[in-house]
Amino acid sequence: MPPESLRCKECKETYPLEARYVCERCFGPLEVLYSPRPQTDPAELRRRIQAGPHSLWRYADFLPVANPRGDTAGGLDPLLRADRLAEQLGLREVWIKNDAANPTHSFKDRVVSWHSRERGNSGSRRSRARPRATWPTRSLPMRPPRVSSPTCSSRPTWRSRRSGHRRVRHQPDGRARNYDDVNRLCTEISADYDWAFVNINMRPYYSEGSKTLAFETVEQLGWAIPDRVVCPIASGSLFTKIARGFEEWLEVGLIEGSLPTFNGAQATGCSPVATAFQEGNDFCRPVKPDTIAKSLAIGNPADGPYALDLARRTGGTVDAVSDDEIRDGIQLLARSTGIFTETAGGVTVAVLRKLAERGDIDPSERVVAYITGEGLKTLDCARGTFETWEIEPTLASFEQASDRVGVAA
Amino acid sequence: MPPESLRCKECKETYPLEARYVCERCFGPLEVLYSPRPQTDPAELRRRIQAGPHSLWRYADFLPVANPRGDTAGGLDPLLRADRLAEQLGLREVWIKNDAANPTHSFKDRVVSWHSRERGNSGSRRSRARPRATWPTRSLPMRPPRVSSPTCSSRPTWRSRRSGHRRVRHQPDGRARNYDDVNRLCTEISADYDWAFVNINMRPYYSEGSKTLAFETVEQLGWAIPDRVVCPIASGSLFTKIARGFEEWLEVGLIEGSLPTFNGAQATGCSPVATAFQEGNDFCRPVKPDTIAKSLAIGNPADGPYALDLARRTGGTVDAVSDDEIRDGIQLLARSTGIFTETAGGVTVAVLRKLAERGDIDPSERVVAYITGEGLKTLDCARGTFETWEIEPTLASFEQASDRVGVAA
Repeated sequence: MPPESLRCKECKETYPLEARYVCERCFGPLEVLYSPRPQTDPAELRRRIQAGPHSLWRYADFLPVANPRGDTAGGLDPLLRADRLAEQLGLREVWIKNDAANPTHSFKDRVVSWHSRERGNSGSRRSRARPRATWPTRSLPMRPPRVSSPTCSSRPTWRSRRSGHRRVRHQPDGRARNYDDVNRLCTEISADYDWAFVNINMRPYYSEGSKTLAFETVEQLGWAIPDRVVCPIASGSLFTKIARGFEEWLEVGLIEGSLPTFNGAQATGCSPVATAFQEGNDFCRPVKPDTIAKSLAIGNPADGPYALDLARRTGGTVDAVSDDEIRDGIQLLARSTGIFTETAGGVTVAVLRKLAERGDIDPSERVVAYITGEGLKTLDCARGTFETWEIEPTLASFEQASDRVGVAA
Repeated sequence: MPPESLRCKECKETYPLEARYVCERCFGPLEVLYSPRPQTDPAELRRRIQAGPHSLWRYADFLPVANPRGDTAGGLDPLLRADRLAEQLGLREVWIKNDAANPTHSFKDRVVSWHSRERGNSGSRRSRARPRATWPTRSLPMRPPRVSSPTCSSRPTWRSRRSGHRRVRHQPDGRARNYDDVNRLCTEISADYDWAFVNINMRPYYSEGSKTLAFETVEQLGWAIPDRVVCPIASGSLFTKIARGFEEWLEVGLIEGSLPTFNGAQATGCSPVATAFQEGNDFCRPVKPDTIAKSLAIGNPADGPYALDLARRTGGTVDAVSDDEIRDGIQLLARSTGIFTETAGGVTVAVLRKLAERGDIDPSERVVAYITGEGLKTLDCARGTFETWEIEPTLASFEQASDRVGVAA
């Protein structure tokens, strides 16, 4: 359905479809409002989706923009049944949605894919969603710098560069330590230069992409809804948009049942939402992040209150785990499924384990855990957690090593 | 169809289904022979495949083993239409099959997946294919060590470890410089200890997994066969098995047409097959590899003669490209598609470019290029090929950098 306007999540004030993310009246966040959907037979809707492209653009009917030219978007990556992991946790049915299989090995492909392929395309729906469709666009990734030991670094994602694009990082000796600093700067630039940033003033459109994780989960489970979702929380956007995806499909009758129980996962070193959950608050007190889970290090989460509300109204929780538990979570997932995740995935698996150990999960439940990024990006965190033996390429050297390390020859 | 026996590709002598890969009579390589397939309606066969799991196990009918327990196998990763890449090369239709999206970000998941999930499963077809199905199995990755600058290193693939598994590498100061050394040692161990190695004496079964790249290509093109294939050659196994996949589906009527033109891609620093092709030989003279494309550095390719034959009988070629061309190929793919590949993918794209520039490709052709691995594994090769600006998280610092680097503010 075509998007109709932007609407404030708090006071319901509406705005035209432009580069704007905060309500002028109450400073609440804005979201995309769609035109009323004509009554459609769910079976027909399902057929249309199944006949669509093998990417997240098969869900274009539920997104603010149509499929842009050049379909290299992410999505439709594996939902794997993780029986060995379930067994180790004493659960019946655990599924891993592996977004590390996206083109840039992150769920971020879902939210940024349409922005980066702007040029040469100004279709009518596109321009409705973006009145300034003729703006030149640039890929200008801004990220916090690598932080020295014992924390983990984000490696440069060279692939996101395209011809003529520039990368700007903060000085390692500067004050930027996390995404909060970066977001603050981008907000200033967007105000002073009338620039659009995907994650700032284009955020209402951007964040809609995360709904596709819910759509794919449903489709890959054979048009069924899971009983429980375990998902990391940084800003809270992904967490709440997955729920929004399920809700939209429940509304149009594509699935039956009710919203899953939502469990949010944070690192103890940056857990404003988990802390608020535990203290019974409905707002989040900003924190200064200090954790190896850099990709979740948002100390002032924009969608924190909505994440809290979602966890509470679905009977879920928001839990936090230590850096050691995160490393164990990375290893548990790798050993049981072969999937190597970055630190955010370690947070998710560690919280899943905590829920299982605490007895929060009924053994009959079907649980889906969202793995949002790739372990090769935070290799430093894996160093020292496995053993390597180096030998000469001779039988004698092999036999010597076999004796030493206990490989039965 | 159940596998029936092993058969020598040269003298056609047959052997029972055991851990064996060389003909005792003529030293030719063995391949899996299947029972004659009962006449099946192609439409029915197609429906059965489409109703199968979302992984390579949907093609189990064409593989020597059935779907093992715990379906975390790879396969069904994206086939992306690369319009920007095609445009830059003056071609009409180029598709990228992106095997970097597999669980361990390599096409290797296709060939090893069933071996690593042996334990606790000894189904009848499994045990037919592997008479010693009760053998304990271990994941024992053997690889050449990292080689110092200016070459590229293989990073440890920690994810392939499972509980209790051991990794053995060669000494950096030892003599192992490439996969030839590793393969030689594994051959010795398999003989002396009666061990089975997936890539040595289990090779006839192992290599069958590569056929799934052809099957997926056909399915993802809407049950059509491409006009041309560009694919890297290391041992020549992947290259020839993709052709075998197309042939099997042509035989059973799942597709119509004829075998695509096959173009093989090698690095100049290890190009025994390209050299033989150019010199008109039907055998390959072994070479000592010296290239940044470590994953293709097999100086004595087991399937070299079959790769030569395939290229010649389909009107194709085997070309070689320099290390600089490989780096350019990596960058060309990243800039035009967003896919960041390791050096082998750079070889493939560089050869695709060479073919296009040489006028070998008719503009009307539908070309599929196979990207076999992930760029994060050979990051060293990308260093120095892009620019980064580090700034403080302030507007002043941003403006200063903007002036300097030409980001129009």
